[in-house]
Amino acid sequence: MQATTRCTSYLPQLPSGIHELLSRSTRASTRSSHRPRWPPLTAHFSHAGLCAGGVQQQRSITIKQLDHGRVDRERVVILGSGWAGYTVARQLDSRKYQAVVVSPRSYFAFTPLLASTSVGTLEFRTALEPVRSKRSKVNYFQGWADGVDFKNKTVTIEEAVDDPTQGLSPTLDRHAGKTGSQREREKATEAKKGRLFDLAYDKLVITVGCYSQTFGIPGVKENALFLKDVGDARKIRNRILACFEAAALPTTSDEMRRTLLNFAIVGGGPTGIEFSAELYDIIKEDLARIYPELIPFHQITVYDVADKVLPMFDANLADYAMDAFRRGGISIKTKHHVNELRKGPPAGSASKVDDQNACFTLNIKEQGEVGVGMVVWSTGLMMNPFVAKALRDIPELPEAGVKFLESGSAQDKSGPTGWVVQKDAKTGSVITDDRLRVKLEAEGVGEDKPQAILEDVFALGDCAILEGTSYPATAQVASQKAEWLAKRLNRDDIEQSGFTWKNLGVMAYIGNWNALFQGSGGGNISGRAAWILWRGAYLTKSVSIRNKILIPMYWFINWLFGRDISRF
Amino acid sequence: MQATTRCTSYLPQLPSGIHELLSRSTRASTRSSHRPRWPPLTAHFSHAGLCAGGVQQQRSITIKQLDHGRVDRERVVILGSGWAGYTVARQLDSRKYQAVVVSPRSYFAFTPLLASTSVGTLEFRTALEPVRSKRSKVNYFQGWADGVDFKNKTVTIEEAVDDPTQGLSPTLDRHAGKTGSQREREKATEAKKGRLFDLAYDKLVITVGCYSQTFGIPGVKENALFLKDVGDARKIRNRILACFEAAALPTTSDEMRRTLLNFAIVGGGPTGIEFSAELYDIIKEDLARIYPELIPFHQITVYDVADKVLPMFDANLADYAMDAFRRGGISIKTKHHVNELRKGPPAGSASKVDDQNACFTLNIKEQGEVGVGMVVWSTGLMMNPFVAKALRDIPELPEAGVKFLESGSAQDKSGPTGWVVQKDAKTGSVITDDRLRVKLEAEGVGEDKPQAILEDVFALGDCAILEGTSYPATAQVASQKAEWLAKRLNRDDIEQSGFTWKNLGVMAYIGNWNALFQGSGGGNISGRAAWILWRGAYLTKSVSIRNKILIPMYWFINWLFGRDISRF
Repeated sequence: MQATTRCTSYLPQLPSGIHELLSRSTRASTRSSHRPRWPPLTAHFSHAGLCAGGVQQQRSITIKQLDHGRVDRERVVILGSGWAGYTVARQLDSRKYQAVVVSPRSYFAFTPLLASTSVGTLEFRTALEPVRSKRSKVNYFQGWADGVDFKNKTVTIEEAVDDPTQGLSPTLDRHAGKTGSQREREKATEAKKGRLFDLAYDKLVITVGCYSQTFGIPGVKENALFLKDVGDARKIRNRILACFEAAALPTTSDEMRRTLLNFAIVGGGPTGIEFSAELYDIIKEDLARIYPELIPFHQITVYDVADKVLPMFDANLADYAMDAFRRGGISIKTKHHVNELRKGPPAGSASKVDDQNACFTLNIKEQGEVGVGMVVWSTGLMMNPFVAKALRDIPELPEAGVKFLESGSAQDKSGPTGWVVQKDAKTGSVITDDRLRVKLEAEGVGEDKPQAILEDVFALGDCAILEGTSYPATAQVASQKAEWLAKRLNRDDIEQSGFTWKNLGVMAYIGNWNALFQGSGGGNISGRAAWILWRGAYLTKSVSIRNKILIPMYWFINWLFGRDISRF
Repeated sequence: MQATTRCTSYLPQLPSGIHELLSRSTRASTRSSHRPRWPPLTAHFSHAGLCAGGVQQQRSITIKQLDHGRVDRERVVILGSGWAGYTVARQLDSRKYQAVVVSPRSYFAFTPLLASTSVGTLEFRTALEPVRSKRSKVNYFQGWADGVDFKNKTVTIEEAVDDPTQGLSPTLDRHAGKTGSQREREKATEAKKGRLFDLAYDKLVITVGCYSQTFGIPGVKENALFLKDVGDARKIRNRILACFEAAALPTTSDEMRRTLLNFAIVGGGPTGIEFSAELYDIIKEDLARIYPELIPFHQITVYDVADKVLPMFDANLADYAMDAFRRGGISIKTKHHVNELRKGPPAGSASKVDDQNACFTLNIKEQGEVGVGMVVWSTGLMMNPFVAKALRDIPELPEAGVKFLESGSAQDKSGPTGWVVQKDAKTGSVITDDRLRVKLEAEGVGEDKPQAILEDVFALGDCAILEGTSYPATAQVASQKAEWLAKRLNRDDIEQSGFTWKNLGVMAYIGNWNALFQGSGGGNISGRAAWILWRGAYLTKSVSIRNKILIPMYWFINWLFGRDISRF
């Protein structure tokens, strides 16, 4: 088995059945000497490793086999399967590197299309790409990264195959509320049960992303819906349709109808605006024809604490969007603050319903209590607990792969008692140099602390920030960094030049087949042309050919026949 | 608004945007006098009722509006949205009848394709059709039928919009364990809360179907997976993939791998066999390439208490199938009985895993304890609790619509103290005459009890049986009955002749692109030709054009790129 043979053929293997189709007779006689050729699976795949692509296509299932399959390649462990992690994994040269992805989620979510899937304009699987597939050469373990031993270069992984929250974007530390010693005891038990294990790395790529920030507002984590993952989109889709179906019951009062069909979106950035736009579309194009009497009862409202929505867009584009929304009956309430979100109807409501799950109440500081059917929370990023807890103190540095930087005070390699990972004071993101390598500084007080760089540990995506820059935490930045890093590793030329972000502009869909596009050079487009650009851009970027076929197919079918409204 | 105008146009309305696309400029200037035409939804649909099709397309949301929309049509209330109920609803002439479907499930599940969706050969929505859609003229309430007042001709409905079990086939009476008086008090509360309401009917069509029968075997209801609805298929799909992903973890022992990848199917009828075949396909075509080292650990086993599987097929066809399965490594264990199904590994297992949810143990009478990753239960029908409880005694008959039959003893209309719905002694199905009308008999002891027919109450599908026949409880019988009934009602000629079933044969997919077909005349086909027939038949029968496009699209895409294995 040649480890260096690269699999270049991307044609699917024809199922063995095709050959049979051409050669066998198809009518079974009572006593046929002709027996079906039915390959038992064990014999059929005893030499799976020798198929096109050789050893790279095998999935190692023990660390030993992973080690064996490594041959003389470096192992790059990638934590996370989002824009940054998935892009790095796919683009690393498998002849040079053995890529191993560790993530609680076995797929990459194509976030720009999530809003479309959350109302049924597209199906959920068209907005995701599996990490593990027949074609990819990437190894994968389903689990959470629990800690890193920088000296011995290992990552501790907590398996997560049956995690009930998979598919939902995380909002709270899954070990929140446990003391340090509680967690240590738990880890010892998990290790005995085989649910915790260590994985050695040569290079580590930290792309764990961020959690959704709820600002400690009571009830939001429990009662709001988020929109960062496919499971979130599915919950939203079911909720919208359930609200209409409940409002359609003959025993629902008009007041409860208004409550159920009051949809609130908190956060006026592109995610919130795009979701509101998609919601407007499904109501206008489908639900208004299926439930025409309910339409007068509905309302869509976008809340934001800032002065205006879509702050990254120029004023004229943002105004265009707000104008369009107002004409569509979508209410935009800027400078509004959420105090609380709880189950049940507002106090003083005449509703007979004391069923706590029927609806929710938003408590807005400027407005008081508002009964709603659904709240989509699309604002705020919270630093990942892994970054906050596991990437902190580094008692001992690895023997190789550390680059010490000149510091103001006398350079003293052995002086500092310990090192800490540098974090951004405001966001808590990991600070990296312009080669995306994690920066350390010596513990202790003082301005000119000695600094160092871990040459084998990289951090990118939402959880990291390049020192001296203020690149936004967006998919565009994450995927550019990831492509740059993969290229540098493949060519072994990371010392040559650092990463710089090329601003390709921002886009947002605003409903009714209209969009906004703002190029970095100042070129602005709005309306139908921007919409065509928006759909085209996402189509070319969508990762697999499979989805490049399915996405326009669904756009067409849903336009022709309407969106499906079944819940299951 | 003409109530008698029938909507004949099936072309979709072009979104208003198309006209805009042709006429508007697309570049926004800083101060544009050109403003986006954004129709507020309320104004846009104020005359929704006047679109093509007139009043029939409105969905009435109060009983009053339903009554108002009735005009001079008879109201046909259909309980259930399966093969029988959905077919009747769609085929009733909306000029003569106002069809109202009451079902806990807002869609019709195309059951022959469920096995394909349960492994990802097709997507779930390709195997369902919504009851409520832009095109259908059918009214719908999401709820359970709770009781019938035959005298006053009303049905009591318990709303079920947020029922957490929706999408899953029912296995137990949702009010099991409650005494009669407990249930009465509960109903009084529900009625106050608006969750229980009455619906009047002119004709009633009872098509509530059956539940899955678990024969009281401990643990089956809680731990087995079923395959009668789309939610079931989704759970199965996620479970298969989770078993492989868990087996792929480096800390899983070989013994646990064998347990996790041991898939048991209980029931050797077409459903069980087809599911086993689909499972074989996904393992051979996709999972064997993604997890090649795991394949030696897997096993598929079909258990049945009978002597042989596929009893409705001729011996040579059944043998062909069993032969094919054996060659594929699928084990068929006839004359085996399940004693119990519980969580956790078998007793005496060396597995470190004490996690009760990791795997299951099947206790087979002839074999002892067997560790399994998943059990699919595809055998046995249990009579629907609605039929068992609500269709029983009839204290008072309606004043019209009852046909008394001659009986052996002197005919005495006022004599019998009460009437009961006739039920089949063995299955508990409702007995109907050959016009599918529910049969009653007088209470009391004796052979020649007076009999009567409720002329306005029909029962068909799995929950009913035509007297003197032994038609199987299949989709074919249910849909033929439903089409016959709808035709008779539309033409008002039900007295002319009774229903007879035309046996169109049986088909079953047996994996690896092979199938069986047995025509009623004795024409048997097996192998590839039967497979083509099998796929063709389901394609032509699949109800909507939307799915006629999507289903072959998915067959093609999954053949070319492999099935998706993501879970969310």
